[in-house]
Amino acid sequence: MPSKAKIGILGASGYTGAELLRLLIRHPRVEIALLTADRRAGQAMRDVFPQFAPYDLPQLVSIESVDWASDGLDLVFCALPHATTQKVIKDLLGKAPATKVVDLSADFRLSDPAAYARWYGHEHHAPELQAEAVYGLVEVYRRAIKSARLVANPGCYTTCAQLAVLPLLKAKAIITDEIVIDAKSGMTGAGRSAKEAMLFSEVSEGFNAYGVGHHRHMGEIDQEFSKAAGREVIATFTPHLVPMNRGILSTIYVRGRRGRAPRDLHEVLTKAYAKESFVHVLPFGETPHTRHVRGSNMTFIGVADDRVPGRAIVIAALDNLTKGASGQAVQNMNLMLGYPESMGIDQVALFP
Amino acid sequence: MPSKAKIGILGASGYTGAELLRLLIRHPRVEIALLTADRRAGQAMRDVFPQFAPYDLPQLVSIESVDWASDGLDLVFCALPHATTQKVIKDLLGKAPATKVVDLSADFRLSDPAAYARWYGHEHHAPELQAEAVYGLVEVYRRAIKSARLVANPGCYTTCAQLAVLPLLKAKAIITDEIVIDAKSGMTGAGRSAKEAMLFSEVSEGFNAYGVGHHRHMGEIDQEFSKAAGREVIATFTPHLVPMNRGILSTIYVRGRRGRAPRDLHEVLTKAYAKESFVHVLPFGETPHTRHVRGSNMTFIGVADDRVPGRAIVIAALDNLTKGASGQAVQNMNLMLGYPESMGIDQVALFP
Amino acid sequence: MPSKAKIGILGASGYTGAELLRLLIRHPRVEIALLTADRRAGQAMRDVFPQFAPYDLPQLVSIESVDWASDGLDLVFCALPHATTQKVIKDLLGKAPATKVVDLSADFRLSDPAAYARWYGHEHHAPELQAEAVYGLVEVYRRAIKSARLVANPGCYTTCAQLAVLPLLKAKAIITDEIVIDAKSGMTGAGRSAKEAMLFSEVSEGFNAYGVGHHRHMGEIDQEFSKAAGREVIATFTPHLVPMNRGILSTIYVRGRRGRAPRDLHEVLTKAYAKESFVHVLPFGETPHTRHVRGSNMTFIGVADDRVPGRAIVIAALDNLTKGASGQAVQNMNLMLGYPESMGIDQVALFP
Amino acid sequence: MPSKAKIGILGASGYTGAELLRLLIRHPRVEIALLTADRRAGQAMRDVFPQFAPYDLPQLVSIESVDWASDGLDLVFCALPHATTQKVIKDLLGKAPATKVVDLSADFRLSDPAAYARWYGHEHHAPELQAEAVYGLVEVYRRAIKSARLVANPGCYTTCAQLAVLPLLKAKAIITDEIVIDAKSGMTGAGRSAKEAMLFSEVSEGFNAYGVGHHRHMGEIDQEFSKAAGREVIATFTPHLVPMNRGILSTIYVRGRRGRAPRDLHEVLTKAYAKESFVHVLPFGETPHTRHVRGSNMTFIGVADDRVPGRAIVIAALDNLTKGASGQAVQNMNLMLGYPESMGIDQVALFP
Repeated sequence: MPSKAKIGILGASGYTGAELLRLLIRHPRVEIALLTADRRAGQAMRDVFPQFAPYDLPQLVSIESVDWASDGLDLVFCALPHATTQKVIKDLLGKAPATKVVDLSADFRLSDPAAYARWYGHEHHAPELQAEAVYGLVEVYRRAIKSARLVANPGCYTTCAQLAVLPLLKAKAIITDEIVIDAKSGMTGAGRSAKEAMLFSEVSEGFNAYGVGHHRHMGEIDQEFSKAAGREVIATFTPHLVPMNRGILSTIYVRGRRGRAPRDLHEVLTKAYAKESFVHVLPFGETPHTRHVRGSNMTFIGVADDRVPGRAIVIAALDNLTKGASGQAVQNMNLMLGYPESMGIDQVALFP
Repeated sequence: MPSKAKIGILGASGYTGAELLRLLIRHPRVEIALLTADRRAGQAMRDVFPQFAPYDLPQLVSIESVDWASDGLDLVFCALPHATTQKVIKDLLGKAPATKVVDLSADFRLSDPAAYARWYGHEHHAPELQAEAVYGLVEVYRRAIKSARLVANPGCYTTCAQLAVLPLLKAKAIITDEIVIDAKSGMTGAGRSAKEAMLFSEVSEGFNAYGVGHHRHMGEIDQEFSKAAGREVIATFTPHLVPMNRGILSTIYVRGRRGRAPRDLHEVLTKAYAKESFVHVLPFGETPHTRHVRGSNMTFIGVADDRVPGRAIVIAALDNLTKGASGQAVQNMNLMLGYPESMGIDQVALFP
Repeated sequence: MPSKAKIGILGASGYTGAELLRLLIRHPRVEIALLTADRRAGQAMRDVFPQFAPYDLPQLVSIESVDWASDGLDLVFCALPHATTQKVIKDLLGKAPATKVVDLSADFRLSDPAAYARWYGHEHHAPELQAEAVYGLVEVYRRAIKSARLVANPGCYTTCAQLAVLPLLKAKAIITDEIVIDAKSGMTGAGRSAKEAMLFSEVSEGFNAYGVGHHRHMGEIDQEFSKAAGREVIATFTPHLVPMNRGILSTIYVRGRRGRAPRDLHEVLTKAYAKESFVHVLPFGETPHTRHVRGSNMTFIGVADDRVPGRAIVIAALDNLTKGASGQAVQNMNLMLGYPESMGIDQVALFP
Repeated sequence: MPSKAKIGILGASGYTGAELLRLLIRHPRVEIALLTADRRAGQAMRDVFPQFAPYDLPQLVSIESVDWASDGLDLVFCALPHATTQKVIKDLLGKAPATKVVDLSADFRLSDPAAYARWYGHEHHAPELQAEAVYGLVEVYRRAIKSARLVANPGCYTTCAQLAVLPLLKAKAIITDEIVIDAKSGMTGAGRSAKEAMLFSEVSEGFNAYGVGHHRHMGEIDQEFSKAAGREVIATFTPHLVPMNRGILSTIYVRGRRGRAPRDLHEVLTKAYAKESFVHVLPFGETPHTRHVRGSNMTFIGVADDRVPGRAIVIAALDNLTKGASGQAVQNMNLMLGYPESMGIDQVALFP
């Protein structure tokens, strides 16, 4: 590998694309060689996101116009919509099999073809890649990611919930059928497409739940929770929208198993993350704010006593665009390219 | 009673005071005769809240300067801090026993002196008034309120949770020891006192839980939930702060008792509130937004299936300053003075 | 006129439509008989704006389906897009000539056909109605409005600027070629159509000017400023977007004519509005906040010394949806139907 | 100089202190050796700003407890209140004359003792240091800063206005007595002290001007504008508060001198900043948003035609905590220590 890897971003005009650029422009071992955005092809990045005006970046092109075989890209971030993604990556890896891919969509997160068909209503278009893909939750699958060609970057809600709950399930420290995840997200999680419901005047000065009882990303949580617990786990999950740009906070209600007290759960989490750069467990009884991880790749986790004996409240916070999407994608890239894991993603949170 | 009742507001410089004025200025059967605000005594209301500049209102005075006996007030709203309240109301009712009082503090909400002492760490200063006070949740205690002299206006979080849960407990439709209330409030709930943690730059663009496991208003919920259920009930409750001014949304996780499905719970609530002016149950599966009740005295309640069989999600939304405080206080006043219950508080919500 | 006038709202699914409903639902002499919204025809108002769920309202219909001749509407509010408006109103008044119309679009604000063609790039489709229309700035044209059949409700920016400047121009108190209007608006001014630039995440936590040097509504200001001054006036005008829902604040820099000091300008304004219900001039040196007029039909105006000798700063604030649109429209309706001018629009501002 | 300079931050518990830390934690040639915060002495930085929990930082101490002579600090950032600052820096430099100081207060910005006394109402406590201090607007005083011991970091409003106007004054391209600066700032500009007027519920969903006609920082603008123009200049300046955390946008109205058109002014600015890393002039007619410089040290400047012939509108945007305070302070530090000017402050803006 030369000192700088040649990188492409597919879908650079969305929020995760912009966040990738924010991080990669200052990454010391990356050359940004390709930016695609079908509807904005021919424009400069500054037309789409004016904050990039001072930087020298490639012009936006359409995916169709890219010649994967000759472009010599070392790694591609794919930030495209669901379903389109499968076709694009299949084509890309067919023509340039040595290129590595970090996919930010949901397309390769479910490893079971039947589960995929059930959640998305159709057969997967690239089942052999689905089988190959490694689930990119670094703190869990670090070793496999290092040698992966295709990594499925986890969802933002699911990253937040998993980092808080997986160690507890692995330690068999909580009852598996009483997990309630009450999740709250900032608005960038809804993406950049123009929808009435996402207008400033619809959103600001208000709060609401949505998708109650049937959020699409539950398949991913079911898969990973069950894998960690060694048995089928179905958790309650309710997402809400907060009038802020960035941040997810999950308030998770659990019951200790076999007499495990909240402090025992805190200890399990503290040990699990003792050596992690991007997960920080707060002292017992303290709970996190989304604002304190804004713009950083950090996840903060807190544990407190519930007033109902035997139950604990675990709260996790991360920035949905950073650790919940693009920061974690760069973390995956670093592993896949043999770079230090925190290279280029060690920004300190922006608060206030 | 002459056509207009003489009304006083104690603590008019806070947010609940301002909200009372907003409603009462246009109430057809009220004369605003007294406004107190100790630290702002001598000032005009417009100096404290400039939106009142166009209206003719009494000057702010200190409580000390008021002569209760000769003022001839028909009803007083008391929006003073905890503990001070007990002393002021005791003094007031001692000197002007015919005056009616709606108290917006927590001082008279707990009917059990022992519970009061446990939650607040000291004996009540006016136990005989504590015994006399009627809990002012109109939808439950309407009859008693009509003949009450002293009404304890419920808290904002607790009003929201009670309206959603009490009918279910009364109908014995839910398991009493698996109630999880995940509550989110706008910032006006924190009041107007200058605290670092409530500055715009600390609060905006972020989200957090607070008082996890030990919020002070739980005593009130315990009391009313247990009364409704006919047995001791302790619910899990976690409050959060949303970067918005007004609104509380409570996401409540319950499990049906003896095979009650979520639709059965929805039916219980629909029947319970069929004739109420200020509680509106949405069609099954729809859930409310705080923005759609902003500035109104309405509570919107929705019920939906949880993905975990046997469990339901009940979500309630209200404006913490209106139905959660001053609007409900005027609703109580209307009952106490024999006015139509919705007089002066039938404003349509302000959205956007 | 029977006790309640039959009213229609064309374009009820937008923000000005919702604001009209908020006001008219509680107007004592109005029956809401017709609501149109072409793309939402067949739906209930609660599907479009859930805050109206508790109220009994007509179903939304398409304009095409309305039979103007037989509907017997006393007055119609037209909240439709530019250009469509002209055709709809021409058709409506052709078939139901006794119906009165308050138009909230820009279509009938310019009285000069040539000015219209210059600003909008095409001939007016209903020039005879353009000639008939009365400009609906109540404080200036009250008498003509009372007998008008068609009233062109002023724009939000232009109402704010005119109320602050017209009396100064009429009094020949300021230099006409040094007027700088720096205007700031909340987001509802951009309407409810789904545009990327109006998404929450694009707008919140930021501030910008737009349309610098060439905003479309300048024609209306030119017309009214020039009429008031008795000579051609072209003012500098820059609009900005504030991350809030409601409110316009205009900071206006003027130079006194013939030695008029800022206090003289203040006196001119104070006298001009001494008897007005909806314009409040603050004491000299105090300046307004948008938040203190939110949800009310009030305009607050302040005047202060500039540090540059001879210059003054005039600041005006109103709610763009109320006095800047729907509140003023109801004010016009009240005059046209012979009702008291402030009936149904005397709400006190909602702050906080 | 060893590879890392030993740095102190006085007043680390305020917003500019936190922003300094955000930047310096990742600065490759800095060791953070001292953090003071009198009221929080004895606490950890994470108690004051939880986002710093993952980092190893010195405990907060009181200024009184610091032994300047033996601490061996290479450079100190002083983020203390006005007036206190003078005394602290005088003491510090008396005991440790080799230490360099970047002062973020207003105390050393005015070079004329008489001007200081006029604006602040008292004699300066350290007039000899006032004479020594170099005004730290890097783009203007770069050479002097490199050899300075004490640098007065400019104010946020004044940096924004100066970067937009100084080149025009130097080029004698605009009329000096018709400059109107309409400035808008986010809330962090008001600091972190607990004041009622800065509470979230007072600020959000609203907009207002303040300090109209008499803002304290005008002395600094007068000084630098006059120096650039070679004659006395007094500009009109009105600050406003925007409900956002970070960002200043100044809309500046100017009149070209001797036939200079807006495009000529644009050319002057483009040339002036052609080689600057932190000032970016947009193409003619485009104007900046604060959101696109958030968290970066960039200033974006745009120029557009006014509709009044002969006048231009110049708009500049920066992040008040970065280029408007702490970023510029680190830029000064870099020069003073002989580091590359953009080291540690080349973060890409955080949007959305």
